[in-house]
Amino acid sequence: MSAPKLRLLPLGGLGEIGKNMTVVELEDRIVVVDVGLRFPTADMMGIDLVLPDFAYLRERVDDIEAIVVTHGHEDHLGALPWILRELGVRDIPVYGRKLTTAMARSKLDEHRMKEVPVEDVEPGEHLEIGPFDLELVHMTHSIPDAAAVALHTELGTVLITGDYRFDQTPVDGRPADMARLAELGREGVLLLYGDSTNADRPGIATSESDVGPELERVFARAEGRIVVTSFASNIHRVQQVVHAAEALGRKVALVGRSMRKNVNIGRSLGHIDVPEGMLVQPREMNDFPDHKLVIISTGSQGEPLSALRRMAYRDHPQVQLHDGDTVVFSATPIPGNERAVNDTIDRLYQIGCGVVTTRDAPVHASGHGHREELKLMLNLTKPRYVMPAHGDFKRIHLHAQLAEAVGVPEGNIFRGENGLPLEIDAAGARFGERERSGMIFVDGVDIGDVADVALRDRRMLSADGIFVVVATVSEQDGSSVAEPEVIFRGVPFREEATKLLDELRATVEASLARAAGEQIRAIDLLQQILHDDLGAFVYERLRRRPMVLPVVVEV
Amino acid sequence: MSAPKLRLLPLGGLGEIGKNMTVVELEDRIVVVDVGLRFPTADMMGIDLVLPDFAYLRERVDDIEAIVVTHGHEDHLGALPWILRELGVRDIPVYGRKLTTAMARSKLDEHRMKEVPVEDVEPGEHLEIGPFDLELVHMTHSIPDAAAVALHTELGTVLITGDYRFDQTPVDGRPADMARLAELGREGVLLLYGDSTNADRPGIATSESDVGPELERVFARAEGRIVVTSFASNIHRVQQVVHAAEALGRKVALVGRSMRKNVNIGRSLGHIDVPEGMLVQPREMNDFPDHKLVIISTGSQGEPLSALRRMAYRDHPQVQLHDGDTVVFSATPIPGNERAVNDTIDRLYQIGCGVVTTRDAPVHASGHGHREELKLMLNLTKPRYVMPAHGDFKRIHLHAQLAEAVGVPEGNIFRGENGLPLEIDAAGARFGERERSGMIFVDGVDIGDVADVALRDRRMLSADGIFVVVATVSEQDGSSVAEPEVIFRGVPFREEATKLLDELRATVEASLARAAGEQIRAIDLLQQILHDDLGAFVYERLRRRPMVLPVVVEV
Repeated sequence: MSAPKLRLLPLGGLGEIGKNMTVVELEDRIVVVDVGLRFPTADMMGIDLVLPDFAYLRERVDDIEAIVVTHGHEDHLGALPWILRELGVRDIPVYGRKLTTAMARSKLDEHRMKEVPVEDVEPGEHLEIGPFDLELVHMTHSIPDAAAVALHTELGTVLITGDYRFDQTPVDGRPADMARLAELGREGVLLLYGDSTNADRPGIATSESDVGPELERVFARAEGRIVVTSFASNIHRVQQVVHAAEALGRKVALVGRSMRKNVNIGRSLGHIDVPEGMLVQPREMNDFPDHKLVIISTGSQGEPLSALRRMAYRDHPQVQLHDGDTVVFSATPIPGNERAVNDTIDRLYQIGCGVVTTRDAPVHASGHGHREELKLMLNLTKPRYVMPAHGDFKRIHLHAQLAEAVGVPEGNIFRGENGLPLEIDAAGARFGERERSGMIFVDGVDIGDVADVALRDRRMLSADGIFVVVATVSEQDGSSVAEPEVIFRGVPFREEATKLLDELRATVEASLARAAGEQIRAIDLLQQILHDDLGAFVYERLRRRPMVLPVVVEV
Repeated sequence: MSAPKLRLLPLGGLGEIGKNMTVVELEDRIVVVDVGLRFPTADMMGIDLVLPDFAYLRERVDDIEAIVVTHGHEDHLGALPWILRELGVRDIPVYGRKLTTAMARSKLDEHRMKEVPVEDVEPGEHLEIGPFDLELVHMTHSIPDAAAVALHTELGTVLITGDYRFDQTPVDGRPADMARLAELGREGVLLLYGDSTNADRPGIATSESDVGPELERVFARAEGRIVVTSFASNIHRVQQVVHAAEALGRKVALVGRSMRKNVNIGRSLGHIDVPEGMLVQPREMNDFPDHKLVIISTGSQGEPLSALRRMAYRDHPQVQLHDGDTVVFSATPIPGNERAVNDTIDRLYQIGCGVVTTRDAPVHASGHGHREELKLMLNLTKPRYVMPAHGDFKRIHLHAQLAEAVGVPEGNIFRGENGLPLEIDAAGARFGERERSGMIFVDGVDIGDVADVALRDRRMLSADGIFVVVATVSEQDGSSVAEPEVIFRGVPFREEATKLLDELRATVEASLARAAGEQIRAIDLLQQILHDDLGAFVYERLRRRPMVLPVVVEV
């Protein structure tokens, strides 16, 4: 038997923020840690979701022992049903803590995949999974039941932090399990694979429990209705809004589907405690005077169909905001959402609402540790090797600098990329040969890769529109037997349109006549000629390159 | 003769950032102050530029006495050639200070409109323009030759600030003309129409001349090549980069078309002084060792085709960056550009460059006054009425609060919107009836309005693509005489495509047969039936709503 080799292959989350997914291999057995997704950027037209390219796993399905999910956020859990469906398997066990598995089950149910085995693991339990001994370590984050994943192997322990911070006064009174992390450090951590999200922020993150009193201060100054928007999965934040509302004698209403769903899950697992009679149903909201109500709403990212966005555009069926109401953004924009958030805020100002954001008061706390917390993790766990994860190249670079600063030798710090496996054996650690990685897109019910021709076509269509030309020619001699049809969509021209259409038809006739003269009869050649001639004509006239789609019908 | 009434109609710049344009009327005579544009947002597909809707001026062309431009930035000057072209006039005089008029002439030349009269006005000169006495007041901003516009009338003085700040140590040693502003205030300012861009920022903006020494400190720490990116029109910034480079014994190269053009204009007008032998041509750059060169580049906003973006993507013909080079962002992202800028920065980190932004060092100073500067303007000019301009609703709201804070009565502060004219006569000031305002789009060589059907079609095409169906039917009996053609673009489906296409053709045949059975022969009705039947079928199968474009050809 050859000497054991551990491989850690990031399929997402490096050189980007989102779609975290890491493959850990030993003796050809695989554990997948996290199966996250990303939301599309503006240039991914019509795309619904972005998944990590998991082609690497297609050949290795039988080697997968388990999927472990560190916490219930979309960027760690969201790709689960898609990937299982595409891999065509239903029997790989999914492990996580209670809230995480509740969210996983809810997702799998929505995709009619109830049969997938999802199992709760408590921190401290040890689970034998092939050659791995799996242990979860309790961490604090902006969702309850977050965990780091320790994979104990014969080569040593791999510690994958998940998203974390060291909140010394969390809302539920349970700080991260620093004792266990220190114990792992004493026993020897082989590799730390750690969250880099806030590697650019100094000091430590505001404690979540400092947000509650701040919300209460903001609420105390508000005279009209109060709307608080936050991430629906930030259950401790919702808890604090409820407490602040209670302290000021206001009732609470939950608006937005995911807000109601997450609060229900949170209540059933005991993560949130809403006193009897505090909760008002959306349809009852108007029975309460403005100064007696706090609305907790989705839409903190300016999402187009979210409850808050609809309120800002005066388009929400139940909530009409007006002069004197206050909207509190208890969240910060995810990079890329700034414009949508600012647009929502400005609409609220136009209505006359007061708006409170983190620029005005500390009404939000990040779920990711700042620089001093990353150093604390490094010093507690004393890893031999470090690989910064969950971050763009800038944050990976900064996290690597922190590792150097606490004394990890430069040669033991690995600045990775998606698809680049880190290989560790008795002789040391090094990057192996690059594996396939990247993005795949969910588009309606279909899944495709980034080179998808559909997307390229959509970009072209979105920029300049389309011309469709239908030419009807005789099967006998190729002559034109009906006036060519020219139809366009998404192409800008106005008064000159009739004249231009006439000229386009003339161009088609001329092209067909020329082709007939040259004895060109094959349909595909005719279509090519029409495509080129019309494209040139349209560019000359409009200085635009719309798609030109010629159809030749033989009769 | 009726009592005189002054009307001030904002056509752009209120409730938004950009496309500033204001119409000032007295005795039916018009002066237009600024003719700015905006750049399109991601949802304006294929649109090149956004102009203010100037429909109001179409009926009033003969009443326009002049166009006055406060400074040479695109959001104040950029729409000039488009608007003159669309209004069909070449003889309206355009006034501004020297750099502004030089830029205006350059734009008009590019649009082959050399005959438009463009005239320099010096601060302090008085120009009779119909019922207005025009005066420019020297201000400081992030481009030389910025001015406020004072329009003296029989009702009093309207002061339109343009973009400004009170830089007490500007690079050229010429602070804003506070003495003249104070004099105007003593004589009595009727209305202050003021820049609100930084109404949300406390204190005062960093002095431009503090940026130079900071750049020198950053340069001194850099070992490899240095790239500085900034707005090309920020000529004093370029000057400071040149001085910092000189102090450290580095040469300077200008990269990017607009950078070279603006520096040329700036040099010819004496705004920038580049010592003999300091300037290196792009083609000579590789003759100099890395530590002897500073490259000044366009691309501070992450623009797709800009020089810096191409460097970051290793796609620039002359500049190849590598490990150890330093890139300095001497600018901040305009809202909406954050993602493009961050993307550029992260690519630079991937290459191994050091990146310095305003988060790391004060290497940029805003050209817009902060809150204390807006108060200073209010206190110097002591206006009777105040109308905050150049800002979204939030900033207008905050600027209005500042006016209240310095003692302007609440009833004399007007929070306006585009299209809402402020009317002032001997009896007081009030908003008049709303006029048409909004956006118009430049799309290639065409100009259209926001409701443009082309744009709606492009959105649909970009989200879900298009199906084109060509059915060939007999002129005699409407029966199908050739197999229907089904073509699609931008629609995602893969292995099932052949089967789906067969089913689509069958759907077309079935629809045609049904129509024939019902004696439906009119082409438009047939097309409607095909559109509806195919749309329903496609949605059922793909859960998408691509555009369906049926073409029925009769032979």
